[in-house]
Amino acid sequence: MADRPTTAAIEEPPARTGRRAAEGVERLEDALGVIAAHLHAAVREAAPTRAELLAAASFLAETGRISDARRQEFVLLSDVLGVSALVEAINARRPADATPNTLRDPFYVPDAPERAGGADIRLAGTGAPLSVSLRVVDLAGAGVAGARVETWQANGEGVSDLQDPDGQPEHNLRGVFRTDAEGRVSFRTIRPGCYRVPVDGPVGALLARLGRSAVTPAHLNFRVSARGYETLTTQIFDAADPALAADAIFAVRAGLAAPFARAGEGWSVALTFALAPLAAGDAP
Amino acid sequence: MADRPTTAAIEEPPARTGRRAAEGVERLEDALGVIAAHLHAAVREAAPTRAELLAAASFLAETGRISDARRQEFVLLSDVLGVSALVEAINARRPADATPNTLRDPFYVPDAPERAGGADIRLAGTGAPLSVSLRVVDLAGAGVAGARVETWQANGEGVSDLQDPDGQPEHNLRGVFRTDAEGRVSFRTIRPGCYRVPVDGPVGALLARLGRSAVTPAHLNFRVSARGYETLTTQIFDAADPALAADAIFAVRAGLAAPFARAGEGWSVALTFALAPLAAGDAP
Repeated sequence: MADRPTTAAIEEPPARTGRRAAEGVERLEDALGVIAAHLHAAVREAAPTRAELLAAASFLAETGRISDARRQEFVLLSDVLGVSALVEAINARRPADATPNTLRDPFYVPDAPERAGGADIRLAGTGAPLSVSLRVVDLAGAGVAGARVETWQANGEGVSDLQDPDGQPEHNLRGVFRTDAEGRVSFRTIRPGCYRVPVDGPVGALLARLGRSAVTPAHLNFRVSARGYETLTTQIFDAADPALAADAIFAVRAGLAAPFARAGEGWSVALTFALAPLAAGDAP
Repeated sequence: MADRPTTAAIEEPPARTGRRAAEGVERLEDALGVIAAHLHAAVREAAPTRAELLAAASFLAETGRISDARRQEFVLLSDVLGVSALVEAINARRPADATPNTLRDPFYVPDAPERAGGADIRLAGTGAPLSVSLRVVDLAGAGVAGARVETWQANGEGVSDLQDPDGQPEHNLRGVFRTDAEGRVSFRTIRPGCYRVPVDGPVGALLARLGRSAVTPAHLNFRVSARGYETLTTQIFDAADPALAADAIFAVRAGLAAPFARAGEGWSVALTFALAPLAAGDAP
């Protein structure tokens, strides 16, 4: 698809416009005006037949019908069109030397247990052992002590505990850590497998019809928060995953692929997260 | 809304591109590439927050959930964004001197009864009497004999027989006529009232929030078909209807507003439909 959005295009967050200043109905009118103008441009370019317009309406209706309180298929549609990643890039602009945000992995839970440094977060172990050592730093490279580091991930088969309540104990492969005086945390886990977006709905059928991958590459999820810094929500991708170049949801961004090195019977990876300082007046 | 699509913009159907030549998966890929590119441009311009993106996804899901075999709320959304009218303009381009197509009114039925010239199609009469005399001509102005003219409309309160099975007999204000040797048809009916799009769903709530009208101006519907000519589906709007300038669905096009003149106790209107000849190879 010649015009398919690329992750490269998403790497450059656009300049903000003044439009965001509007509020309420004025903001809605303004946003709908922008949407209608670009939608008309798309219609003029694609020149759909009447039947194609009806087919698009049917697809969208089906995407709504399969959505409920637990499943939002339109968010998945936004993901696979690269819109979610673009909105994230617009809203989480960082200095060039700070670690970039990504979309937040959907299997985050806010109440995972606190763990001591060096802990093993494998409550059930499908996959190869992985040792993670990470450091949280400021933009000058100095360690940030006492930062809260939340981590969560899929197992070696790409399955989260939330998707697998019968097969995995609650909070498997999750933990909350505090960085030490040098900004360091280490823990033991397993090397994650790649994850497949839900393919049993209309968006999955669309990907299949297009021959597009439903896979998002293997990754570890992190949320790093510390007083005085912008909270970072990001993913570290397995640099060896062949899916890296064709992420179904365009979450992969430059600088977030890490090499997993052989270490005894398993693997190890060393990570650095560079936090951006809070701008004056920002909420943490 | 500064960028709100206007009917004026829709008056000029865009040039076709070569994109329509593609078929099947190639066409789908191409169309989705166009949609994604323009969607990204809209996102960059409107710069939604994460919460606004989720609100948009929720609106679209609700629009799907209320849709079923009888109600397609996404078609209504397409209508109120001016997309349906634009697709119609793209697909029904006519020579400048031919009567333009409009969106087909949703209350068309294909099996209305045949009526003799001059017939009264009021089976139940709410509204002021209206005499319609019309002529079907070719692009040189010569009458087209034997053309099939189907007409249907709402009553004086803007209600179609399909919406009002208890209050109106089947086929009230409907009829199928044949033009005479000079291309003429006349019949008696009532002056229609303006029509309101369904406002009990998410699209109606959106219009209300924006303070936009849900009204499409009072009109008579026609479908005119004759051997050797493109079938014309169009609406003749009451030139005196104040809703003419703010049609909720952008169906109004230049040249389709007709003055209804006083005639005794009621009204009269005289109409001319100019048919475009079929291009060689076109289906009728």
